This record gives sequence, structure tokens and C-alpha cells, in this order.
Amino acid sequence: MTPERLRNLLDRVRQGTLGVDEALGELETLPFEDIEYARVDLHRKLRQGIPEVILGEGKTAEQIIGIAKRLLAAGQSVLVTRLAAESAPKVLSAVPELRHNPIARTVATVRDPAPRTDGPPVVVVTAGTSDVPVAEEALVTLECAGIPSERLFDVGVAGLHRLLEAVPLLRRARAVIVVAGMEGALPSVVGGLVAVPVFAVPTSNGYGAALGGLTALFGMLTSCAAGVTVVNIDNGFGAAMAVARLVQSERVKGPA
Amino acid sequence: MTPERLRNLLDRVRQGTLGVDEALGELETLPFEDIEYARVDLHRKLRQGIPEVILGEGKTAEQIIGIAKRLLAAGQSVLVTRLAAESAPKVLSAVPELRHNPIARTVATVRDPAPRTDGPPVVVVTAGTSDVPVAEEALVTLECAGIPSERLFDVGVAGLHRLLEAVPLLRRARAVIVVAGMEGALPSVVGGLVAVPVFAVPTSNGYGAALGGLTALFGMLTSCAAGVTVVNIDNGFGAAMAVARLVQSERVKGPA
Amino acid sequence: MTPERLRNLLDRVRQGTLGVDEALGELETLPFEDIEYARVDLHRKLRQGIPEVILGEGKTAEQIIGIAKRLLAAGQSVLVTRLAAESAPKVLSAVPELRHNPIARTVATVRDPAPRTDGPPVVVVTAGTSDVPVAEEALVTLECAGIPSERLFDVGVAGLHRLLEAVPLLRRARAVIVVAGMEGALPSVVGGLVAVPVFAVPTSNGYGAALGGLTALFGMLTSCAAGVTVVNIDNGFGAAMAVARLVQSERVKGPA
Amino acid sequence: MTPERLRNLLDRVRQGTLGVDEALGELETLPFEDIEYARVDLHRKLRQGIPEVILGEGKTAEQIIGIAKRLLAAGQSVLVTRLAAESAPKVLSAVPELRHNPIARTVATVRDPAPRTDGPPVVVVTAGTSDVPVAEEALVTLECAGIPSERLFDVGVAGLHRLLEAVPLLRRARAVIVVAGMEGALPSVVGGLVAVPVFAVPTSNGYGAALGGLTALFGMLTSCAAGVTVVNIDNGFGAAMAVARLVQSERVKGPA
Amino acid sequence: MTPERLRNLLDRVRQGTLGVDEALGELETLPFEDIEYARVDLHRKLRQGIPEVILGEGKTAEQIIGIAKRLLAAGQSVLVTRLAAESAPKVLSAVPELRHNPIARTVATVRDPAPRTDGPPVVVVTAGTSDVPVAEEALVTLECAGIPSERLFDVGVAGLHRLLEAVPLLRRARAVIVVAGMEGALPSVVGGLVAVPVFAVPTSNGYGAALGGLTALFGMLTSCAAGVTVVNIDNGFGAAMAVARLVQSERVKGPA
Amino acid sequence: MTPERLRNLLDRVRQGTLGVDEALGELETLPFEDIEYARVDLHRKLRQGIPEVILGEGKTAEQIIGIAKRLLAAGQSVLVTRLAAESAPKVLSAVPELRHNPIARTVATVRDPAPRTDGPPVVVVTAGTSDVPVAEEALVTLECAGIPSERLFDVGVAGLHRLLEAVPLLRRARAVIVVAGMEGALPSVVGGLVAVPVFAVPTSNGYGAALGGLTALFGMLTSCAAGVTVVNIDNGFGAAMAVARLVQSERVKGPA
Amino acid sequence: MTPERLRNLLDRVRQGTLGVDEALGELETLPFEDIEYARVDLHRKLRQGIPEVILGEGKTAEQIIGIAKRLLAAGQSVLVTRLAAESAPKVLSAVPELRHNPIARTVATVRDPAPRTDGPPVVVVTAGTSDVPVAEEALVTLECAGIPSERLFDVGVAGLHRLLEAVPLLRRARAVIVVAGMEGALPSVVGGLVAVPVFAVPTSNGYGAALGGLTALFGMLTSCAAGVTVVNIDNGFGAAMAVARLVQSERVKGPA
Amino acid sequence: MTPERLRNLLDRVRQGTLGVDEALGELETLPFEDIEYARVDLHRKLRQGIPEVILGEGKTAEQIIGIAKRLLAAGQSVLVTRLAAESAPKVLSAVPELRHNPIARTVATVRDPAPRTDGPPVVVVTAGTSDVPVAEEALVTLECAGIPSERLFDVGVAGLHRLLEAVPLLRRARAVIVVAGMEGALPSVVGGLVAVPVFAVPTSNGYGAALGGLTALFGMLTSCAAGVTVVNIDNGFGAAMAVARLVQSERVKGPA
Repeated sequence: MTPERLRNLLDRVRQGTLGVDEALGELETLPFEDIEYARVDLHRKLRQGIPEVILGEGKTAEQIIGIAKRLLAAGQSVLVTRLAAESAPKVLSAVPELRHNPIARTVATVRDPAPRTDGPPVVVVTAGTSDVPVAEEALVTLECAGIPSERLFDVGVAGLHRLLEAVPLLRRARAVIVVAGMEGALPSVVGGLVAVPVFAVPTSNGYGAALGGLTALFGMLTSCAAGVTVVNIDNGFGAAMAVARLVQSERVKGPA
Repeated sequence: MTPERLRNLLDRVRQGTLGVDEALGELETLPFEDIEYARVDLHRKLRQGIPEVILGEGKTAEQIIGIAKRLLAAGQSVLVTRLAAESAPKVLSAVPELRHNPIARTVATVRDPAPRTDGPPVVVVTAGTSDVPVAEEALVTLECAGIPSERLFDVGVAGLHRLLEAVPLLRRARAVIVVAGMEGALPSVVGGLVAVPVFAVPTSNGYGAALGGLTALFGMLTSCAAGVTVVNIDNGFGAAMAVARLVQSERVKGPA
Repeated sequence: MTPERLRNLLDRVRQGTLGVDEALGELETLPFEDIEYARVDLHRKLRQGIPEVILGEGKTAEQIIGIAKRLLAAGQSVLVTRLAAESAPKVLSAVPELRHNPIARTVATVRDPAPRTDGPPVVVVTAGTSDVPVAEEALVTLECAGIPSERLFDVGVAGLHRLLEAVPLLRRARAVIVVAGMEGALPSVVGGLVAVPVFAVPTSNGYGAALGGLTALFGMLTSCAAGVTVVNIDNGFGAAMAVARLVQSERVKGPA
Repeated sequence: MTPERLRNLLDRVRQGTLGVDEALGELETLPFEDIEYARVDLHRKLRQGIPEVILGEGKTAEQIIGIAKRLLAAGQSVLVTRLAAESAPKVLSAVPELRHNPIARTVATVRDPAPRTDGPPVVVVTAGTSDVPVAEEALVTLECAGIPSERLFDVGVAGLHRLLEAVPLLRRARAVIVVAGMEGALPSVVGGLVAVPVFAVPTSNGYGAALGGLTALFGMLTSCAAGVTVVNIDNGFGAAMAVARLVQSERVKGPA
Repeated sequence: MTPERLRNLLDRVRQGTLGVDEALGELETLPFEDIEYARVDLHRKLRQGIPEVILGEGKTAEQIIGIAKRLLAAGQSVLVTRLAAESAPKVLSAVPELRHNPIARTVATVRDPAPRTDGPPVVVVTAGTSDVPVAEEALVTLECAGIPSERLFDVGVAGLHRLLEAVPLLRRARAVIVVAGMEGALPSVVGGLVAVPVFAVPTSNGYGAALGGLTALFGMLTSCAAGVTVVNIDNGFGAAMAVARLVQSERVKGPA
Repeated sequence: MTPERLRNLLDRVRQGTLGVDEALGELETLPFEDIEYARVDLHRKLRQGIPEVILGEGKTAEQIIGIAKRLLAAGQSVLVTRLAAESAPKVLSAVPELRHNPIARTVATVRDPAPRTDGPPVVVVTAGTSDVPVAEEALVTLECAGIPSERLFDVGVAGLHRLLEAVPLLRRARAVIVVAGMEGALPSVVGGLVAVPVFAVPTSNGYGAALGGLTALFGMLTSCAAGVTVVNIDNGFGAAMAVARLVQSERVKGPA
Repeated sequence: MTPERLRNLLDRVRQGTLGVDEALGELETLPFEDIEYARVDLHRKLRQGIPEVILGEGKTAEQIIGIAKRLLAAGQSVLVTRLAAESAPKVLSAVPELRHNPIARTVATVRDPAPRTDGPPVVVVTAGTSDVPVAEEALVTLECAGIPSERLFDVGVAGLHRLLEAVPLLRRARAVIVVAGMEGALPSVVGGLVAVPVFAVPTSNGYGAALGGLTALFGMLTSCAAGVTVVNIDNGFGAAMAVARLVQSERVKGPA
Repeated sequence: MTPERLRNLLDRVRQGTLGVDEALGELETLPFEDIEYARVDLHRKLRQGIPEVILGEGKTAEQIIGIAKRLLAAGQSVLVTRLAAESAPKVLSAVPELRHNPIARTVATVRDPAPRTDGPPVVVVTAGTSDVPVAEEALVTLECAGIPSERLFDVGVAGLHRLLEAVPLLRRARAVIVVAGMEGALPSVVGGLVAVPVFAVPTSNGYGAALGGLTALFGMLTSCAAGVTVVNIDNGFGAAMAVARLVQSERVKGPA
């Protein structure tokens, strides 16, 4: 409910073109649709430039199908993340326009694509091969948001020469998403090499003292490279959304 | 060592204007100055657009003074964060051009100011009064980086009306830094209200189950608002540097 | 063993209408029945206004059936919570009068219903769709206790407009049970909007830094909204029982 | 902003007695007063029946004084909790109408006392002598809220006879607040003995495996007594506020 | 290698009845038998009055069979604890003299029974039905050690009357083993009621804040009842062995 | 309240030698004395053979003095543990018959000494010099309980020869209390060498990964030596009380 | 990129035998081969004397096969660790020259064996039978590195005589790898008995307070035996690689 | 007690030149001296090539002086680590031959210097200035052990060029000790660049998510660079002792 819309509403009441009860109703009508187990937000894109995304984990295939159909019926894009392998076939047969990316664990369809930006790509970096699924989740999300991207995989700090070769690519990037498990050292090194925004994604790869990703998470948070920010463990989607906020904000407001 | 500089150097060797040994020397000469306990990075700004910042914690007043003098001698700005209260007088009397901000726990002087941007300000939000020192650290850092900012303090989620009033301000911001302790719920609410970049700073305020800031940190990392990213507990400096990366990147590359 | 019952017993001994040995026996006869693996409490309702509830987790189907039959034989209601999916068919075929709620993971039958209260309902709120099973456990428990309830699902803080619409409903409630996972911010926001009793239930939904519900739990415990109290992770039953204590106490003692 | 107030406002706009801009202004005028470091909520009591309370921890004496004066100037009561011993003299000399309770670590003055309820008292129980300060914080808070209370101290489970004697008192209580450190077993025992609302407060008393109160906290959360709810470690204030919500709700809505 | 045996050996060397090399050999011959993956201790009973016990967890069925056969061949008793359900049939068919207790997860045979003591029994107490398997592991172990025992199950603190009835039994016991999960409050209460040795066994029963038994463990360690000692989570065997040390010690040394 | 006492009381009521109200009074009169902040248990020794002990931590000097005087007035012994260094002079000057042991952090006086046992001593072992204060707390407690003891200090596992020399002493002991910090390995080694009861006391000595004693605690709980039991970190008192239970039990019941 | 190679390259540029662009190309050509999901390091042995090893965990069988083939094609040895049981058949049928060790969970082939050293063996010690798989991983790795080794299994500290017998073997060793779970005490004892390098490997064996190997890990890190160093939980490979660094370093540099 | 010494002793008994009782005595005489609070190990150097070192933390100045004097009286070297600042003056005035290093927090004197090795130095690396004290502790220890060393300070991964310059130095080192706090990434990078032994020392520098050094510790343990081993937080002494084991072992056994 923006001030503009409120002013317009009050003006119509003032002019008598809108009754008090109608005004009340409009103030109370909210842009979501209530199904039994969810309130589907149909105006999120309007408010945030980002369509609503369905976190697949913790929902039944039936619930996911229900929400996806509601979004599609409202002409919105659909992105489901962290989809359980066993739910995918049900979801795909019920909503055939969705495309499945089993590595990224997503299904998606882009109805109303964001205008594709022409600037430099976002580079998505992984420390190892095991970090690829999380990187792919980020890449799918960027694609849904119309943001160009490039892959730079398996350049962990124990073999530094692989990373150093890619420094020019990283310096040209609009932003860098760095995905790493185990000790999570890669974002510190990347953050020290480039001045662009760096978003760090810890992964749950590793064993023992890797603590299911907490070690990488804490390491990234205490990074000695200033200005590196962090999202939840395995949350490739979140890092891509952080980039989407940045791109969306630049589009609307222009450069600094 | 950029490719351009390397090509230039190789060209000079080729032309015989640079001897092999000199070239070797140049390749090995690195832009830092070695004092007993530190290697002061005199070219960081060149590489990252961000001058080197001194983390005061864990350093003696003498070490801080030594590094600060070296930076000033090289014509660089100085920012010292997390300065112990008992070190401040020594540092200030030894390096009188530094200004002290006791709430932010910083001393700083800006020698070579970044060109001040004219765009919308960064809004620095706190949940409570106890979060103000961390917010002030962010504000000092933004000022050193030449980025305009605005305060929005004490708007925690338990009194939602205080925050809702400020939504237009938040929507106009270039980015929002949200500083909160205890349960750290504010970034989720802000992230759901605005589409601009949101950087969350957990603070160590609170007691018992606040776990010295870990509860706020974990809460922000699992925020249900997509694309909110997080820095270390009490790290106002880090959030401001994340904004600096974003602004610096826009300046250089233009909007998306 | 209340003082009144003790006085009465002593009076009867005094008057000679009760022998010393009989008195001893009565003092020692305790209102539970001993089966091999459990002491079934047949007088809990008498003492607490709440019939004994069987925690299904950690018990075999055979043990659950044994205890349920003993309670039914004593004319009591039965509520089994956290019933393993594989135990449900066995329990239902052995004790056919039980009704199964697979979402809530309960089986129950109400033999001796509490008189249904006519006051305002308890509102059970969830942040997301994944929190619904825990909310349903609370709703089943409230129903067993004869307490009217209403659902308000999927109103998490990242889409605040969904919650704000429901504020009048929440303010009219006898009590509010707020069920949320991830960062667990919803009880703080609800607690700041209403003055009625608020019971917060963290859920194990989320991943990574959600720490299996500990993040939501700690967040709720450090809530900046005063007077919000908390139960164990996923313990919808516990929150409903807290409401039952409140309702039971009001019934007996009248309003303040 | 209740629906009634909104309807009234819209009616006045309709009737022309309120201009659009004035209406906008009124919609934006929020009931708090902005001082540099805090937004003092002057209408909380109106909204919640509970005046705003100042958490002393993390605030300077100057900030506490500033907020307290603003509340007093608005005719509100003042309660400051977790006040640092060294701040107390400054606060008391600047705001002489405040009374200091050094054991409870509070200063308070009740300007606008809640009507004193006549019903049964709230019983505040401690397991040991070391838990008394937390219990006293609860007692001061109850007093500010006009709720009668009674003490039952040092009745920990290792000497069960001390507790059993008091069962009749506990059964008559409007609610019981149980304060315990170390293993935090007392709320389970009390919760099994009485049917009234039980609010458990873990304390940081104990050493080693007591983990600064986390052991008591976790123990209370996993209590085998159903319907016991829990607040943060050492948060006597929070438990009292939970009781205040209950009493306030009963007053307004009548018994079930 | 006791001093007596050493003296005897040295005497024989002195007298020339034992050659230096033989003496060396004897000194080096140690009372265990080396199989590929284990050194089976054939003299433990001699040294400790307790035969060697096989921890089944982490060993293959083949390894368990190999060790058990070696012990039996040496005329020793066998007790295997924490035996995986899928290993039991293999072990039983390979070593038919073993008896299986599936609830306790043990197989055992007593070849060389300790003389049965006639004194008061050890009472094994559980808080709930879910704690029974751990209690049964303790009971099997006590039986192998020839120590008489008695069961007292499902007497958790939330229904205190069930425990109070049994106080005379507990006071007569040689020792009490208290098995409890969730908040683990029962050993504190028992420890406060009786003066006999109390060994507390936390179990992994419970969910959420029960932390897989850590909450019960920490609670028991911080018990306010003095002199209660604790073993590892679910370690019924360990508690029984503590009792065996006590009984063995009394047998050898007589009462204090 | 034993059955015998209850029977006697009922008999007297039956015979008319005790009035109903007097009987009620007697049933309600409990053997503790209520001072403002504590209920001093004057009959603990009667019930447990162990006088009440005052945990000094968390109590003011005034509270300690109050409780100690009450115990002395009732003719009981006094033992105060974990007494803050700054409280000791106040306590000693107010209650001059107490003796101070500054290393053990205790004050004590034995009024009613337990009959000194003549059997083998309890051996109190430490891994290092830093563990001595905790060992001394155990030794003071044993002395108060009339149990003979012997010291074996600084025999940590990194210098095994120091321990091996003492094996005969350890094998003769009535029980062994093993006090160790850091990795806490000593109880495993001792437990493997002797068959007598072994009580392990982790200490908070060490740094970093010692985690304030948690590492030693967890190590002792997972000891590969069967039947070793554990008390809280730094709880020398608790280990001595476990021995007191054992000795007390043997005295009353005779050997097995 | 060593200085020598750089000098040689610059010399060739100087002499005109290498063009600037070729020189640039050579400087940028890095010794790895890029496949879709991995950058296979073909020169690691050159740089480190250790061929690249594939961590099987977190990679699909297809990815492992792809990397292994690339390494074999480059004439390198292959070692895959932590290979999932279900991946082994696929990998073995696709790359038949690999040998499978199911206990160690490795597949390996040594193409280019390191010259076998003749010195004293590395002794790999385990505390128990359950620790054998981790020890075998170390042994396979040592074999790949051409380092002679010897087994000493099941010599945990609870049966010290088994270890003491082996002291001469341990003292003769080039290095000792000590593998232990539960309380992880063995490295402290071994470290106190021998002066050779001791590398400790905690294992995830044990339950409850063993915390999945964290207790052993922390115990080893706080070992009272000086100079014992530690690797990750279950990381037998890492300990063997530490030995390989030591042996490789001695070979190149000679003794101290 | 080595086999050789045992054989010699037995030979003398055989020949009658040593009586049985004397032999017994000799077998029992152990090379330590017992003072009240410590058993000073006077033969450690003989057994391990490393003199006994006194951990200052947790000992009083008096105890440190007592042990140091005993060692000096036996002609041994003395090294005290982690000496409290307030104890240093007392220790130095009582034992004037000790030299104090306040940054390293050590006092030491080398009586019986190890023969100084001539090989390549050990390089001690720090990530930042705050890590210097821990590095200095390692350097003092190396000096006591007669091992040459070199400093390479403040070369953290956020400014990679500082480290890359030093690669040749690192590759020539006998071993590298890497000291780093915060995210602890430096050992991974160093371990990937060099093949020599790398010992990682996490420090407690950093705040918030640095968790007092645990984050660096866990990061180093999960390092993606193979064969890096780790010591306790801030344990510079331990890393130096690991190097001493390596050097000592090479001296005695020669290269592989």
C-alpha cells in the first residue's frame, strides 16, 4: 500500500467517486490469494521486482502443484527450489510447462521475463566439483531474473594457479558469487583480488570438522577480505536474489 | 599484476629498454612496505578502490600508530575500527590529524576522498538503541568512502508502526543496512518491504539465548526474505564495505 | 493427596470408622495402573483437568495400544501425539474408536469432552506452509480440550501485509499460538501487535543455519516483544496444553 | 491504526471536515517521539495495556535518563530492568521519583497504576537462594502491573519435602512462575503437581555443564510436564509480562 | 604384571631355575591374543573381576563372532552390547550358546558366573517407557555380573506420586540406576530422597531441545542432589559396570 | 515422612492421644527452617547421612553467614564450597569456628563427625598441578565425611611412568577420584588399571579446544574403560559425595 | 611458476627467440585440464611430489570416472578416497586398472611409484577394532606414496599392557599415526612414550558424548603430550599425506 | 624402562651382582622428583630429546618457581609458556637466569642447548599483526630446541601478493608453521603452494563468528590442502614441538 495509492484512494473518497465502505474494502483487499495451506502472493513482483519463489523443501508435491498453478493462473513466473527428487515427476506431470534441472534441484518456467541486461555477467565460482549443485541453483535463479552469468568451477585455494588465471574475468564481473564448502577460504581470496560485490555461499560439503557447512559459514563471516557478505549454507538461490536486488536497484535508480 | 602491466613490461624487455634483472626485480617488487609486525598495503586503493583499513582489536597502540603513519606518509586515508578505549588517547596524540568517534570506536582521516556520489542515500537502520554503536561504525565507513547516508534508529519489529512509517524512505534508498541484536528479525521484515539491496548486521546485544549475537546471526541467515545477505556480528564496517563494493562497481561499469 | 482428603481420612480414623491399616492402604493406593513397561495415570484429569496424553515417539505400536486400552477401560479420553506413520495402521486396527489425523501425526478419541467454552477462539498462526503439521497438532489438542480455535496460515513476516490484515482477528483471540521455523520472527511481530497471551512454537523447518529449529527457538526466546513464552521445537501439543492450563484456570477461579 | 479509527477518519474526509493532506498527515503521525538514539513509544499502553519498559543493559545512563524523562513527561509509568550497578546512582539522581531495587536490578515508578486485581496471587517460586534476584525482577514487574504475588523461595527438587508442603498454595495460584538454574528440574515437578499456568524461568546459576543457563533452559523446554512454557535465561521480567498478558486478557474478555 | 609375580620371577632367575631369555620372554608375554583386527584380552577378569565386553557398534558381525569365539575358547563369559539388529542372526547362528535380548540389544552367555550376592538388589528406575531399552541393557549387564536387581519403570517427575510410593524400595537398594531422557530431572529427585549410590543414565529420548540426550546429560551433571554421578548417553552398560566395581570392591575389601 | 512414622502417628490418632489438628500440624511441620532467602534443611543428615552443604557461588556473604549460623545453631556441621575469595574474611569473622582452606575455596567445621572408617583410603589423583584445587575440594569434603584419603598428584598420561609406579596404591584404594583437565585421558587409563570404583572429575584447566572443561568432560563420559562415572566440571565436592554415598551404604547394609 | 622458469622465459624474450604474445600465452597456460565440472591438476606431483587425489564423497561415479581417466591419460597415479559403496562397481568397471579396498573405501592405482624408502616404517596404531577402516585409508595412502608401514591395532588405553609391549616398535618408527575414537586418549599416551613425529586421527566411533568424533578431536588438540598434531575426523588420508610431506622434505633436503 | 636396561638388570641378578630387593628397587625408582604439588620429570629429555616445559597457565608463581628451580638444579633447560603478566616479575626475581619475552609470554633459559642444526630454517608465517604473539611463542620454543627459524609476518590471504612473493622462501623451508585467526584460510593456501611439512596454528583473534578461534581451528582441520596438520588454538609452542619431533627424528634415523 504505497502513499501514492493511498492519496489516490483518499482523493476518490473526497470526490465522492468512492464510497467509504468501498474504500474500506479496497484498503483491506490484499494482493494474495488464500488457499487452504498457503497465501499465494500475487503482487510480490509488483512490490519487489522479484516473483514469488516456492521453497520445495517441507512441502508436499500436492502443495507445490497448487501454489504453482495459482501463480501461473495469475500470469506469473514460477521457480521451485530444493525440490525433493521424488516430488519432481509428480510436479512435472501436473504442471507440464515447468522445466526440471535435477542438478540444481529446481523446476521453473519464466512467463514474464525480466528484460535481459547487457552489462557484464555475474560470475559464479566454485571451490570444488561437489559445490556445483549449489552453483547451479544460483545460475537457474539468475536466469529466471534475466541476469547474464558465467561459470568458473573447481578453482579452490589449494591450487591457486587455477584461480589466478581467472582474475581478469572476475574483475570484469558485475558481481561474483563464490560457492565453497570445507574451510570456505575461497571468498576471502577472491574478495582480496577484486573490488566488485562478492556474495559468499557456504556449502555442506566436507565431513567431520566441516560441521555440515557451519565451518565454511563461520569462515566466510570472519573473512579478512572486507565487504564480502554471506548467505545461508547451500543457499545458491539467496545469493542470486541478492544480485537481483542489486541489478534491480541499479535499473531503477541509475548508477551512483 | 594486471595483464596490461605485464605486457608493457615484456614489451620493454623486448625493446631492450629494460634488462632481465630489472624486469625480475620489478616483478618481485610488491606494493607494500614491510615494518617489523606488518606489511602495509599501499596499493590497495589502486586495486580495490578501497584504502586499507586497520582493525584496531588485537593490535597495540604502538602498532596502530606505526601503520597509520606509514599510510599517511603514502598519502592514503586512514580508518581504524574497533579501537580499544584505552588506546585512543595514545593514537590521537601521536597522529593528531585523526578524528575520534568514541561511539563508533573509530579514528579516521580522509586524505583522498572518493568523489561524493549524488544518488539516493544508504539508510542505516537499527532495531534498538543498543545497536547504535554498530550502526555508527557503518556510518563512519560510508563517510570515508564518500557515500551519502541517513539514520533510521530504534524501529524494531515489536513496535511495527515505527518501521512502517519509514517504508517510503527505505524504498528510495540505494541500499539498506539493517543492524539488530536479540532475535534479529528486522532484516526479514525490511527485506520483505523493499526490493533494494539489504545488508544485515547482527549485534551482540541481548543476553542468555541471544548467545552473544549468534542467534541474530543465524536468524538473519535463515531469513524468509530472499536476497538478504549477512556480515559478522557487530561488523558495521563490513556492511558498509559491501555497499562500497556495490557503489564502486556501478561507478566503473554503469548500470545494468 | 489434598489436605481436605487427608483431614477427612484422619477424621474417619479418629471416629473409628476407618481402621489404621485401611487408612495406610488408602494413603498408599495410588491412582495409576502398572503394566510391564508403563504406569498409566488414571487420575491425571482429576488432578490437572487434563487427561494423560501418550507421546508416540519412542514407543512401539504394542506399547501404545496397551496404554490406550487401559485409558479407555478407565473411561478416559486418549490422545497420541508424534505417532510414527508405520505404527498408525496397527494402532487403528487394534483400537478402532481412535481417529487418525495424518498431518498432525495424532490419533485421538474424546470420551469425556471438556465442556465447550463459548469465549473467543484461540488463533493458531503459521509463518509458512511447512509449519502446518505442527499447527495441526496444536489444533487437535485444543479440540480434545474443548477449546474453540481458528486457523491463520502462511502469514510470515517477509510478506507483512498478509499478517496486518488479520490484526483484528488476533486482537480478539483468547490466546495466540504462533508456529514458525527458519528465523522464527513471527512471534515478535505478533507479540508487538496484540496484548493477548502469545505462545510461540519454533519448528524444525529450514536448513543450514536454521539448525533444526534451534535458530527459531533461540530467536523466540530473545524476542523483543515482552511476555511471549516458548515451547520446545515442533511442540504444537505443548502450546495447546499451555492454553488449556490458562482456560482451565480461568474456569475454576474466575477472571482477575 | 484500528479499523474504527480508519473509518472515522474516512468519514470525516467524506464529509469534508478533514482535508486529504490532513488525513494523510494523520495517517502518518505515529504515537512515538523521536529522540536521537530512540523512538519512545508513548502509546504502547494504549495498544497493549502494558507501558513501555526500558531494558537497561546496553544503554548508557544518559540514554536511560532521556527515555525515562520522556515517558514521565507523557504521564506514563517507568520500569528499567537489568540496570548496571554503576548506572543506578546517575539515573536516580537525575530522575528522583524512581525507586531502586538493587537485588532485582530495577528502577521503577508507577504513575498510572493498573487497577489492583483481587483474585488469587501469582506465586513466584525459586529452586535456590541464588535464583532470588531473577525472582525479584519478576515480582517488581508484577507489582508495576498491579498483579498480587507471593514468594516461595528455595524449594529445589533435591529436598522435595520443602516443595510438597506448598502444594496447596501452588494449586490456588492464578499462575506460577518457577525460577531455577542448574538442571532446571523444578518446573517439571511443579507442572506435574498443579493445573494452573506455569511459566518457567531458567537462570544462569551453576557452573561447568550448567552452560550459563542453557542446560536449565533446554531442560525446561523438554519438560515432561505438559503445557509448561519458557522464557529466556534470567528473564524474570518476561515471565511476569506473560502473566500480565493473561490477566489483561481475562479482564477484557471475561472467563472462558 | 604384579609386584608379587615380578618378585617370584626374579627369585627364579636368581636361583637359576629360569634363564634370562626365558624371563625376558615371560615378561613380554602378555595376556592377550592377537587376531587381525583385535587384541582379545583374556585376563581382564583376572585383573578387574570383570570379563571383557564387546561393544557391537562399529564392528562387523564377522569381527564380533571372531572375538566372541576367542573369549569362549578361553573359558570366559561373553557380553556383546549395542548389537545392530541385522547382525544378531549371523552372530547367533555362528555362536549358538549366546542368548539374544532384542530390547536391550545384547547377546550374552555367562560361562563363569560371579558368585551371586545375597544383599539388597540394585534398583533400575526409568522416567518413561521409552527409556526401557537402556534400562534393560543395564539389567542384562548386572545379571552377567551376578548382581541381583529390580525394575521400577515409568516413574517420571511429572507424576511424582508414582515415585514417592517407591521410596522405601529405593532406600533399601544397594545402589540405584536412574535412566531418563528429555530434561533428565529424575536423578535429582531420587538423589534427594535416598542416601545410597545413585548412577544416572541420560537417554537420547525426546526431540528438539532434548538435543539427542545432551540436555538430559547436562542436567544430570548439574544436579542439585549431591553425589549423583553420570555415564554417557544411553550407556546402561556403563552404569551397571560402575555398580559392578562397587560390589567387587566391597567383596574384596569388606565394608568401611 | 516414612511409613513407620505415619503408622505411629495414625496409631496415636486412633488411640485419641493425638488430636486431628495436631496430627495435621505434625504432618505439615517439615524439618526445615525458613529464613527470608533460604529454607535451611536441618534434617538432611537424618535422611541422607550427609549434612547440608552450602554452595557459596551465587550467594552473598550475608546469606552464607545466615545459613551457616542456622546450621550451627541446630548442632550440625557446616561446609561451604566455591566460596568467593572476597567473601571469606567476612564469613570467617562472623562465624569464627569455621576453618578456611583457600586452595580448596572452602570453609568448614565438623561438629558431629562421622565415625572415622578404618578401611583402605580413597585415593585422589590429579593429572597436573593445575588440577590441585579441585582435588583439594574433594579432600576437604572427604574429611568432613570422616573418610580417610591419600593424595597422588601430577601423574598425567603424558608421563606414564609416574602413574604406573602408583598402581599398587590405586588397587588397594576403596575408591579412586581422578581429577584431570585438558583431554581428560587419565580416568580411562586408571579405570583400565584398577577394578575399584573410579569417579572422574573434569576440570576447566586448559585453553582453546579444552572448551572450559567440556572436552575433558566429554572425554571422560566416552571413556573406553567401563564403569567410570563422571561429575560436573571442577566438582570435586560431588565426587567426594559420591564416595560418601558408597561408604554410607556399605556401613548400613554390609558388604555384598 | 618458479623464478627459474620465469628467468628462462624472460631470457628467451630478450633474445628474441620468444615473441611477446607467445610469452604471454605461456605465462597464462596453466597445468590443468578443464572438464565441465572439474579442473584436473596434472602438475601437482611436479609441484608437490604428491599426485592429485580425488575425494570421492560428494562426487557422482561419472565425475570420478572422468577425472580418473584424465589423470591416467596424463600418466599419473590415481587415488580415490571416501568412495561410496554404491559407486565402486561403476568406477571399477569403467576404469579396470583401479584396485578396490572396501574397508579403506578407496580405489587406487600407482602408475609412477615413488622410489620406495628403506628407512624405518611408519606405524599406524588404532585404539580399537572400529578404528580400522580409517587406519586402512592411511595405509593405502602411504603405499601410494611409496612409504613403508606397519600395523598396530586395538591397543587402546583401557588395556595399557597391550600398548606398552609395543613401545620399542613405536620408538623405532619414522612417524606414528594414531587413530582413535571415543575419548581419543591414545595419542597423548603414545606422544608421551616416544619422541618421533605423532599424527593423531580422531574417528567418529562412539555414541552420545562422543559427538560424532568431536570429543576425540578436541581431546587430541588439548593433548598434554607436546608436539602431537591433529587432522580432521576420520581423515586417515590426511595423516598419511602429512607423513608424505615429511618424507618428501627429508629426501630433498637431507637430515637436519 | 627399555628392554636393554631390563636385560642388563636381569643379567646382573643372574650373576648375583644385584640382589633381588635391589633389583626391585631399581625397577621401581622412577626418574622424577616429587614436590608437594608436582612430579618434576627429570629424564624427559633422555626419553624424548625434549626437556620438560612448564605450562604457566593455572599455576601460581610459587609453583612455577619451585618447578623451575628443581629443573635447573638437575642441570636441565627451562621453558615456561603462557606466563601470566603479573607472575613474570616474581618468577624473574626468584630465578634470575631466566630471560623474559613479554610478547611471547615466556621465560626461558637454555642450559644444555641442542646442537644447532645447519639445514634450512623453519619459516613461521602469520596472517596478521595480531597473530604475532603466538608466532613468537613458536619462535622461542624453536630457539630452545636449537632449530633455526625465519619470520614471515602479515601475509594473509586477502592480500595474496604479499604471500606469493615469499613462495621461494617457503619452498626452501624445513617446515612451515602457519599462524592465523579469523577464517584461518592461510594454511590451505600455503599447503597448496609448498610440499614441505605445514603445521597450522589457529589463533583466537577475531570476534563474533570467529568463536574465539574455533572457526580458524575447524577451517584448518577441513583444509582442502592435503597433509596440513593442526594444533590447539594459540598453541605456538605445540607447533614448534611438532617440528622438534621431526628434526629430532631425522637426526637419529637419517633421511628416508
